[in-house]
Amino acid sequence: MRALRFNAPFDVTVEEASDPSLVDSRDAIVRVAATCVCGSDLWYFRGDNPRDAGSAIGHECIGEVVDVGVDVRNIRVGDFVVVPFLASCGQCRLCRDGQLQSCSVAAEAGVFSTQGAQAEYVRAPFADGSLVVVPGGRPADAVLPHLLALSDVMATGYHAAVAADVQPGHTVAVVGDGAVGLSAVLAARMRGAERIIALSRHADRQAIATSFGATDIVPARGEEAVAEVRELTQGMGADAVLECVGTEESMTTAVGIARPGATVGFVGLPHGSGAPLGRMFRHNIGLVGGVAPSRLYTPALIDAVLAGEITPGDVFDRRMTLEELPAAYVEMNERRAIKVWATP
Amino acid sequence: MRALRFNAPFDVTVEEASDPSLVDSRDAIVRVAATCVCGSDLWYFRGDNPRDAGSAIGHECIGEVVDVGVDVRNIRVGDFVVVPFLASCGQCRLCRDGQLQSCSVAAEAGVFSTQGAQAEYVRAPFADGSLVVVPGGRPADAVLPHLLALSDVMATGYHAAVAADVQPGHTVAVVGDGAVGLSAVLAARMRGAERIIALSRHADRQAIATSFGATDIVPARGEEAVAEVRELTQGMGADAVLECVGTEESMTTAVGIARPGATVGFVGLPHGSGAPLGRMFRHNIGLVGGVAPSRLYTPALIDAVLAGEITPGDVFDRRMTLEELPAAYVEMNERRAIKVWATP
Repeated sequence: MRALRFNAPFDVTVEEASDPSLVDSRDAIVRVAATCVCGSDLWYFRGDNPRDAGSAIGHECIGEVVDVGVDVRNIRVGDFVVVPFLASCGQCRLCRDGQLQSCSVAAEAGVFSTQGAQAEYVRAPFADGSLVVVPGGRPADAVLPHLLALSDVMATGYHAAVAADVQPGHTVAVVGDGAVGLSAVLAARMRGAERIIALSRHADRQAIATSFGATDIVPARGEEAVAEVRELTQGMGADAVLECVGTEESMTTAVGIARPGATVGFVGLPHGSGAPLGRMFRHNIGLVGGVAPSRLYTPALIDAVLAGEITPGDVFDRRMTLEELPAAYVEMNERRAIKVWATP
Repeated sequence: MRALRFNAPFDVTVEEASDPSLVDSRDAIVRVAATCVCGSDLWYFRGDNPRDAGSAIGHECIGEVVDVGVDVRNIRVGDFVVVPFLASCGQCRLCRDGQLQSCSVAAEAGVFSTQGAQAEYVRAPFADGSLVVVPGGRPADAVLPHLLALSDVMATGYHAAVAADVQPGHTVAVVGDGAVGLSAVLAARMRGAERIIALSRHADRQAIATSFGATDIVPARGEEAVAEVRELTQGMGADAVLECVGTEESMTTAVGIARPGATVGFVGLPHGSGAPLGRMFRHNIGLVGGVAPSRLYTPALIDAVLAGEITPGDVFDRRMTLEELPAAYVEMNERRAIKVWATP
């Protein structure tokens, strides 16, 4: 098969590779119908995080199941599935408590997410606990990007809204206008937010945010953004804040625009260990979030996509073929694309 | 009247001072029946936080109302009251939302807490919004310390349990064995925790923790404590953690002993801005808490004290007269006393 390989920072190529095979009796093999590049893939691309030379890359995809291990019960060959980025057994005490990101069985197996989804085929571990079947089978091509977005960014944005306890009628502020931040805007709308303030300074992203339900756009950053959001909220701050960046600056902004007693739902992987604990303490602002237990949200999100209620795939602003996909790393790294998807 | 004065670090004395008078029409004057020294008073004593030379000190007391401003409606001369450490108007939007610690009226007036409670009389700002009348008037002397504890430490410990969402049947871990930590143990019991693990290495504090409901004592600290609590909880960690210290080490321990998806209720004033965001993110561990909106809890806590259900004043291990109280700063600073109370 053809598959992307990470060779070294700034060096990702498409190579001929062996088709994946079942390694564990709980695995499934998926023929990839659509895959994409994640912001977190860029950490390896830039050399910020180490990664083995020659390793398969990509953790987001949808596709058709072509083989399953002998212990797989609920997923069948021929099923069209969303592959959530997070692999979880679905059976252990933590999974049953909804803490899929901490699945003890997956941890013991040394598995965190599907690996090598930027390929024609991928091995998906813990198929029963992880994969979600799309009712009705493979949908029309136009629906593919919207289902693909559920593999990671839309589930992650939704997690931010759940963690921040967004309620109907809330004023919600979203920090970050990447694919996850834009998805968080959509999630806030789905949960009934009355007003959604998107912090964004790029016209193309502002347009998507607005189409996803943002009622206000704040292009400022840092203290200026804090002042603007406070002004927009009669000095109170937002009832819930969705933090989708993970830098110390964005965390400080998020806490700064939260009203007393509000919760910041944080899903941007924290870089560094600084947090604005002083303001959090003084005004009882909570910080709740983390890795999205994505599969929890997938079934309802699939239903919303198939019903035409949401179009989360609008975060993809470029489509390529698998052969072209190495260029997506460059485009996204240079911020010339928000998020690129591809069909093998 | 006689009143404590902060002169300089390590120099607190009792002086003759003018009786306080009504400054604002919403003030009350309280004749102090009992007062005490707070761990946060020691920050000034040690010179960690600056404080004006000659300033009145103390923010915890109970006593009898002897005068009220013309705009006070619900508090009357002769009422015996608990004076919560936090002053709040009770009327603004934030107070009505339960965010008393962020009261916009008190903030505008430059008022945070009652000042100068270590004295024979004290001026209590925003009497209607802050003070809580003790039903039945002044109780027997034996009850005084238990009501006095509601002014700060017990309310603060209770806030930790509320913030961490302690539920019946939970396994709760408490980090910190100061007066607030011990109060948090009691609060966890009140909220129905089945198992309460107190991190404490001092025999006298362990004894109080046990009498307050602790079922397990872990004397270790840091990584050793994390390992012990995990072992006590079948590797899972605690369902809720109450962080009552505020150092980076204690915060790391608190997050380390929290099970995936749990919330750390933090009420120890944070020293520094470091937080274990990596583990919080990886395992969806939330951080919620801050300054206790103490008055919210006071009425129910008074009822529990008067019904004999709780004895939160057991955190006081020394009683002095007001004249002796400067010595309490030394005793507490040198950790020879947990918390000292005094009657003028």
